[in-house]
Amino acid sequence: FGCFFCPPKNTNIRISLPAVCFVWQIAMIVLFGVFIRYDAESDIRLWLQLKHTNNITSDIENDFYFRYPSFQDVHVMIFVGFGFLMTFLKRYSFGGVGFNFLIGAFGLQWALLMQGWFHALDPTTGKISIGVEGLINADFCVAASLIAYGALLGKVSPVQLMVVTLFGVTLFAVEEYIILNLLHCRDAGGSMVIHCFGGYYGLTISWILYRPKLHQSKRLNGSVYHSDVFAMIGTLFLWMFWPSFNSAITDHGSGQHRTAINTYIALASSVLTTVAISSASEKRGKLDMVHIQNATLAGGVAMGTAAEFMITPYGALIVGFCTGIISTFGYLFVSPFMEKYLKIQDTCGVHNLHALPGMLGGFIGAIVAAAATEEVYSREGLIETFDFEGEFADRTVGTQGGFQAAGVCVAIAFAVVGGAVVGLILRLPIWGDPADDNCFDDEVYWEVPEDEEGIPPVLEYNNHMTHKHQDISESNFSVEQS
Amino acid sequence: FGCFFCPPKNTNIRISLPAVCFVWQIAMIVLFGVFIRYDAESDIRLWLQLKHTNNITSDIENDFYFRYPSFQDVHVMIFVGFGFLMTFLKRYSFGGVGFNFLIGAFGLQWALLMQGWFHALDPTTGKISIGVEGLINADFCVAASLIAYGALLGKVSPVQLMVVTLFGVTLFAVEEYIILNLLHCRDAGGSMVIHCFGGYYGLTISWILYRPKLHQSKRLNGSVYHSDVFAMIGTLFLWMFWPSFNSAITDHGSGQHRTAINTYIALASSVLTTVAISSASEKRGKLDMVHIQNATLAGGVAMGTAAEFMITPYGALIVGFCTGIISTFGYLFVSPFMEKYLKIQDTCGVHNLHALPGMLGGFIGAIVAAAATEEVYSREGLIETFDFEGEFADRTVGTQGGFQAAGVCVAIAFAVVGGAVVGLILRLPIWGDPADDNCFDDEVYWEVPEDEEGIPPVLEYNNHMTHKHQDISESNFSVEQS
Amino acid sequence: FGCFFCPPKNTNIRISLPAVCFVWQIAMIVLFGVFIRYDAESDIRLWLQLKHTNNITSDIENDFYFRYPSFQDVHVMIFVGFGFLMTFLKRYSFGGVGFNFLIGAFGLQWALLMQGWFHALDPTTGKISIGVEGLINADFCVAASLIAYGALLGKVSPVQLMVVTLFGVTLFAVEEYIILNLLHCRDAGGSMVIHCFGGYYGLTISWILYRPKLHQSKRLNGSVYHSDVFAMIGTLFLWMFWPSFNSAITDHGSGQHRTAINTYIALASSVLTTVAISSASEKRGKLDMVHIQNATLAGGVAMGTAAEFMITPYGALIVGFCTGIISTFGYLFVSPFMEKYLKIQDTCGVHNLHALPGMLGGFIGAIVAAAATEEVYSREGLIETFDFEGEFADRTVGTQGGFQAAGVCVAIAFAVVGGAVVGLILRLPIWGDPADDNCFDDEVYWEVPEDEEGIPPVLEYNNHMTHKHQDISESNFSVEQS
Repeated sequence: FGCFFCPPKNTNIRISLPAVCFVWQIAMIVLFGVFIRYDAESDIRLWLQLKHTNNITSDIENDFYFRYPSFQDVHVMIFVGFGFLMTFLKRYSFGGVGFNFLIGAFGLQWALLMQGWFHALDPTTGKISIGVEGLINADFCVAASLIAYGALLGKVSPVQLMVVTLFGVTLFAVEEYIILNLLHCRDAGGSMVIHCFGGYYGLTISWILYRPKLHQSKRLNGSVYHSDVFAMIGTLFLWMFWPSFNSAITDHGSGQHRTAINTYIALASSVLTTVAISSASEKRGKLDMVHIQNATLAGGVAMGTAAEFMITPYGALIVGFCTGIISTFGYLFVSPFMEKYLKIQDTCGVHNLHALPGMLGGFIGAIVAAAATEEVYSREGLIETFDFEGEFADRTVGTQGGFQAAGVCVAIAFAVVGGAVVGLILRLPIWGDPADDNCFDDEVYWEVPEDEEGIPPVLEYNNHMTHKHQDISESNFSVEQS
Repeated sequence: FGCFFCPPKNTNIRISLPAVCFVWQIAMIVLFGVFIRYDAESDIRLWLQLKHTNNITSDIENDFYFRYPSFQDVHVMIFVGFGFLMTFLKRYSFGGVGFNFLIGAFGLQWALLMQGWFHALDPTTGKISIGVEGLINADFCVAASLIAYGALLGKVSPVQLMVVTLFGVTLFAVEEYIILNLLHCRDAGGSMVIHCFGGYYGLTISWILYRPKLHQSKRLNGSVYHSDVFAMIGTLFLWMFWPSFNSAITDHGSGQHRTAINTYIALASSVLTTVAISSASEKRGKLDMVHIQNATLAGGVAMGTAAEFMITPYGALIVGFCTGIISTFGYLFVSPFMEKYLKIQDTCGVHNLHALPGMLGGFIGAIVAAAATEEVYSREGLIETFDFEGEFADRTVGTQGGFQAAGVCVAIAFAVVGGAVVGLILRLPIWGDPADDNCFDDEVYWEVPEDEEGIPPVLEYNNHMTHKHQDISESNFSVEQS
Repeated sequence: FGCFFCPPKNTNIRISLPAVCFVWQIAMIVLFGVFIRYDAESDIRLWLQLKHTNNITSDIENDFYFRYPSFQDVHVMIFVGFGFLMTFLKRYSFGGVGFNFLIGAFGLQWALLMQGWFHALDPTTGKISIGVEGLINADFCVAASLIAYGALLGKVSPVQLMVVTLFGVTLFAVEEYIILNLLHCRDAGGSMVIHCFGGYYGLTISWILYRPKLHQSKRLNGSVYHSDVFAMIGTLFLWMFWPSFNSAITDHGSGQHRTAINTYIALASSVLTTVAISSASEKRGKLDMVHIQNATLAGGVAMGTAAEFMITPYGALIVGFCTGIISTFGYLFVSPFMEKYLKIQDTCGVHNLHALPGMLGGFIGAIVAAAATEEVYSREGLIETFDFEGEFADRTVGTQGGFQAAGVCVAIAFAVVGGAVVGLILRLPIWGDPADDNCFDDEVYWEVPEDEEGIPPVLEYNNHMTHKHQDISESNFSVEQS
């Protein structure tokens, strides 16, 4: 991957960013106009009809009341969780939370369309019906692109991020269709379709966009005290609401209930093993904020597939236990290795938090599915949990396990191939990305306020410095004179 | 508006603030004692009775389960959303979040009473019944005064803010009664009654309190890096939970469902057009945090009335698209114009985020109402959505549209006249407001900790400076000696 | 309490912290494996069975939908609320939010077991059934230990905190069993069992661990501007979600509804009286962030017992009014008194926010219970509210009031005796706690990033200083030369 054109980098995005935002947003309006309609639970006419037809006596039966609280939790994870988790850099907090906001808002619109075409298109009317479950799925779909952003943080322009999201959402919808519909996998919290796919998608792009001289921006590739505290806002909202993430679209009733419990338990376990490894790896036992901010979440990622199954509470604990260890080891050893030998620069360490735990989560789901028994689930419960209906009525749990494992491979394949293509597109010298010595710096894309308070000390300091040097020069001068 | 009495400003509020807090809180206790009771769904005796009478088989039918999750989201918007949005100033974060907290807590009590008298007074017992919907309405009512605070941020004392809130809540209750009950408008998310009213109320007060020498505080009227990140907490919680805000008190079932979807979509669209205009307006395409923090929310404001109607998903996108543009233009051109020529100093730009989008939202609601058809809503749906019952049973959607538009005018009239009166009251020299060169400074009303960490660098720096100057002097001296 | 062994303090926790985390986490896995199972509403087989047996027609009847939104609010309070409230120290924000995270994640696992053994053990199978109510209770149980952490903040090692939590959860479960089951008290929001117990438990430990030379760390025992803003995140999430905290496990229907209303109202009242006292206590009426961050929450603590009763809305206002005053006075006078004369160093002032308001809340609950009448509650309502069933069917409200008051005493007794024992254990010189001149400093247990932004000003400053001094020396030198 040589450098085709090597002019000095032009980071002026005054034309490209507004153009992309405007054109794509107008395209969304047109496509929404053609395709998107309210579903039967949010359309007043259809809902009244549904109530009469199905003899629904109470409005509380509307899916809104089953899923809206979880939806809002997921929404917080997407925008505050992911957004603030990426504020940890000392001078890229605006970009972390701000670009996350931008591509999230774009991606969810595109996701409503893409997922709609694959999952909710009415063949007779040619329209997509959306309801609260559609909003949750759109947020999920966007999550994959935001995870990819984590690998690219500080090294790409917002225009590039829009491209990453456009393709990311598209790839996601296809991959998800193959995994959930064709392979008929279960993946409620998206270990495979969201985390594994999103992680490897971002890592592949980062690999293609490898910057050999990134060390020139090293002074900005780190945190300051308060930026680490900001990042903890992201961590905690992700950690707390992960039970909602995994359970948001599982089956009504015991399905949502059990998924939330399993995720809650696995996450608790991750925290302890993360702390243990982080402390054991420093000579005085000091904890590293990077581990606490990230690896504590690995249990939630790894439970994304299996949480809706009867994995048992201690099974959930074991998953959290192991993934907390693996993820922290990833930050200690795998990330430096990848950067040095594989030429993959992974700013937020999404490999350790999403890609690897997601892949593991997919396989854990396969194993737990294959181990399901009628004794534990009951016959009716097996059918409900694994959706063994219609053309899949005869599938055994063993077969299901095999297909679950195949799903992981599909996710990785889409991520790597898709990421490579997108990476190559992003190498075109038209996107306004920063130079190697200019990464991780909000100054490039944001009007950054002058530093510090009131009478800014740095400025004052510099002024004084100037005066001082003058003084000194003068003193020197007077010396010379004397 | 001359200066009647011009002593040096006295910002000592040691008597006035405690007095106002104590006396008004005691008044609240007395008035609550006389008027406020639990409603039939929160009183144990009445609820058991209601269950028996209406043959309610499940506790899940209690309104609590329909509305409490939305209530908590609204609550977060009021206290964290508005509060943190106002932390963006470099040295007024305590005042931003702290006074927002104070007047929110006072206002919601007064709102329970004022709204109760107008909407929930039982004529036989003379008591007001409160339940979860009452709490949501109280939070809504307070929101108008908090919006007004946005225009006044940094320029008024907490005692003045209490007065602003006392009158703001009172005016709100009357205006809301006229708009919702007499004109029989629909305004679920309060484009008219909350945002338009609150915005113009604050702007009028700010106009009356015009400070010709405010530029003397210019050094503090801006952000620093971390204060902008704090403000993003406010922005994101407002943005994420706005679907709950607009849907919190809409009809059970498809009403809440549809409102949430519309608001979610409109907000997504606002983000992209805000980014586009913000980038296009800077010579290198850099984004301005002020726009991202505020104009991204305009879509939610503008959907406050129409979101519960069948505006269609692409209609919602168009609303968000346009208001994102208008709001950002407001920050770029209208605010400076208003400050220079109209003498309205609007610290947070509430004109661009609330007043104007709220007014537009009111008119959008009027148009969408007038365009409603039986084909889309069904007859039953029209009646449910627009509440065409009782004395309004014969109203047509065209007439409804006209009344909706009239509602906007009522909101503005109340805001301007009420704001002018309150502004004049606040000009009395008894409220402890800061001098023109002392605005935007927490030092006035808060015990502010010494700056910076551990051994404060600024201080240390100054010490060193002193030493240094001594050194230099000495060196000069020695030079002279030599 | 002399110093038994006085080597220089060794704060290396590289062995102890990982060992404790690993061993205890493995113990959790084993115990979960032996004891913990899904309950009938989260196990797919049992839930389907329950639906068939009890003729449940809708999944919305699953307890998940009654309690999950409240659970998530409580979860936010535990991890973001308590965590960020403890970030106020200038250089202990990592420890505040990070150790809170660690011990919360450990404590909730242990709580599921301890509370399970006492409350949810199936005598025939020997298994504990957990569901969403169990998760809420586990969070509640952990809250007591986190409150205790507030008194110890900055003065103990994470290993000690694990010990505090291990014993805290154990003591809690026993104390709760005695109060709720044997004495048959009602304590939905835990004024007694959580706040009173947790507060005095922490204070007793702090008393045993008294550090006579703590003033040597005085420079770090205070806030900076932005750390105070971070702490407001904690305050506001606690304040906003407290209605969910108190109502999370109350009776379905009017019980949850009424509890939320009462708590909402009491908290509003606390804010005004806190502001009043805070302002009145400073010579220019300036507000103190410590009061705003803490005493505003006292109304929620004090309503923990009585909120589910028919205390009436004005009763709730009065409770908030008084406890806001008492708590603020506590910060002004009681904390300094305790530190000086009682040798109790209470970093966060948990005495004023939890211990005292919790105790008061217990007695308020006793009075409101004793004053309950059939006229207000109805006979059926009295039975439902106070659970006068089975062996308690004949209890009068007067007797109930007496038992409620006795519950407070049990909570305090457990706290003081248990705290003393735990304090003595923590005095063993093996836990890695910091020296007196090294408290409140994240450097001890965390890898702290270099200070400040970009090109760090302090460092640069020092560099320049060095250069400068060189310059000056040179100039001096040249002078001498000349």
